[in-house]
Amino acid sequence: MELWYTEHHTPNTGLTLKVRQTLYVGKSGYQSIEVLDTVDYGRVLLLDGLVMTTDRDEYIYHEMITHPALFVHQKPENVLVIGGGDGGAIRETVKHPEVSKAVLCEIDPMVVDVSRRFFPGLSAELEGNPRVEVNIQDGIRFLESCSGRWDVIMVDSTDPVGPATGLFEEDFFRKCANALRPEGILVAQSESPFYHLELQVKMKRALCAAGFSSVYFYTAPVPTYPGGFWSWVMAGRDYHPLKDFHEDRLEGLASGLRYYTPDIHRAAFCLPAFMKKALERDEDNQV
Amino acid sequence: MELWYTEHHTPNTGLTLKVRQTLYVGKSGYQSIEVLDTVDYGRVLLLDGLVMTTDRDEYIYHEMITHPALFVHQKPENVLVIGGGDGGAIRETVKHPEVSKAVLCEIDPMVVDVSRRFFPGLSAELEGNPRVEVNIQDGIRFLESCSGRWDVIMVDSTDPVGPATGLFEEDFFRKCANALRPEGILVAQSESPFYHLELQVKMKRALCAAGFSSVYFYTAPVPTYPGGFWSWVMAGRDYHPLKDFHEDRLEGLASGLRYYTPDIHRAAFCLPAFMKKALERDEDNQV
Repeated sequence: MELWYTEHHTPNTGLTLKVRQTLYVGKSGYQSIEVLDTVDYGRVLLLDGLVMTTDRDEYIYHEMITHPALFVHQKPENVLVIGGGDGGAIRETVKHPEVSKAVLCEIDPMVVDVSRRFFPGLSAELEGNPRVEVNIQDGIRFLESCSGRWDVIMVDSTDPVGPATGLFEEDFFRKCANALRPEGILVAQSESPFYHLELQVKMKRALCAAGFSSVYFYTAPVPTYPGGFWSWVMAGRDYHPLKDFHEDRLEGLASGLRYYTPDIHRAAFCLPAFMKKALERDEDNQV
Repeated sequence: MELWYTEHHTPNTGLTLKVRQTLYVGKSGYQSIEVLDTVDYGRVLLLDGLVMTTDRDEYIYHEMITHPALFVHQKPENVLVIGGGDGGAIRETVKHPEVSKAVLCEIDPMVVDVSRRFFPGLSAELEGNPRVEVNIQDGIRFLESCSGRWDVIMVDSTDPVGPATGLFEEDFFRKCANALRPEGILVAQSESPFYHLELQVKMKRALCAAGFSSVYFYTAPVPTYPGGFWSWVMAGRDYHPLKDFHEDRLEGLASGLRYYTPDIHRAAFCLPAFMKKALERDEDNQV
């Protein structure tokens, strides 16, 4: 018997992966959670049937949601990850010696438990690292309790359906702005340029309306995500992702990274013509 | 009845597309040729069951196989496209006013015929443009007949199985070197960094052995190709893809391009850490 798992990126296009075995099937109060062992991509974490991360390509997503902002901020001491219960963003964040506190705020305890059990490479830093704190809590609520506290906030969310819907809206970005220190930087995953360009335009508008004066999108390839191409958005006040790039701090970390390099940092902010055009209708994303 | 077409990028991973109808099924002396009408990607051209191009994302591949080399060469007057029977590379090439002759050398006449019939947007320039010449001939043979003639040669081939196998080897690259003028530039599609990294290392070695002293890989996302991420290699003698970038010539063309921009030109040559590392085992790809 051959077992295949197909994620439909749209009702008419999908990625199909040959499965060795199903390792876990569960349902939390928020979503369904499955772990598959696939032939090409190793273990795959599914939330509500969507690929969140895989053993083989997780490094690209996690390096790209963390390092650009951490190398742009002058001194990222206090970092908050909202979502990201698998632990991958925290693992990359604590590679920076400047970070004295990395707090994970994940709404669903079962995601953290499943990652601890099936993705030790992702979740390793969630236990036993004195700089790391795990909060099982609604990210929006948690933000309200901490004003002017964070140097970097990373929104490592699922797609804007289900529990993550609120994490793409102006009201949430306003709470992030309030929870950041004055030089603080927000970074959020912002879906596929090929499939969700309208969402990116909406996010840009919402971020600007929430008080972020400098909003820049960047991209990287992620083979198991829709279109194989993903984007993130970085937002702050009066900063520039290239001029404020503290490349010198990368030296000690470079050997441990598999996707991100100083050149990739600069290249990632250069957007395809179609994406640039869509985003410039509102405002300039020129780097 | 729902009809889906799945291309297996490896025996264990595939892209699956919902099909409205099958428009054409044929078999030439070289390969099987099919045209599908898909819901998300419009018309899809399959050669031996592999997606060659689709209405929706063809622009990325065709802009990226042509414009980087054409803007790096000082005066690309004579351009040869080997393969590329769909006409997409020729369509982009003739956008450059410097090009006085763009010759297509395609081994399989049925690819050209099918493109003329089903992909008018791709093949439009193959007829009636006095600067364009279509040769139905084996590219390797054709090269032997023209020594020191071309400013730019583009190898727009299928994967290195079947009729295109020879187009990835040293002997072929040596024939290209011989057919180029002294400042000539060769560009070739070089498969997916995620799935074919060893091929890229081999191609680099073969290009250097064939007498190309400056060999640079570059990348772009192509959602319907394996891994959603593609690469090309540019080779010449004593040139540099960024220092010799004639950005000023882009002005008149920019509005007609949907992926390529001057920033994308520079960004495309910045390779992911894993790719850089694999290629640097041999020699430096640093830009």
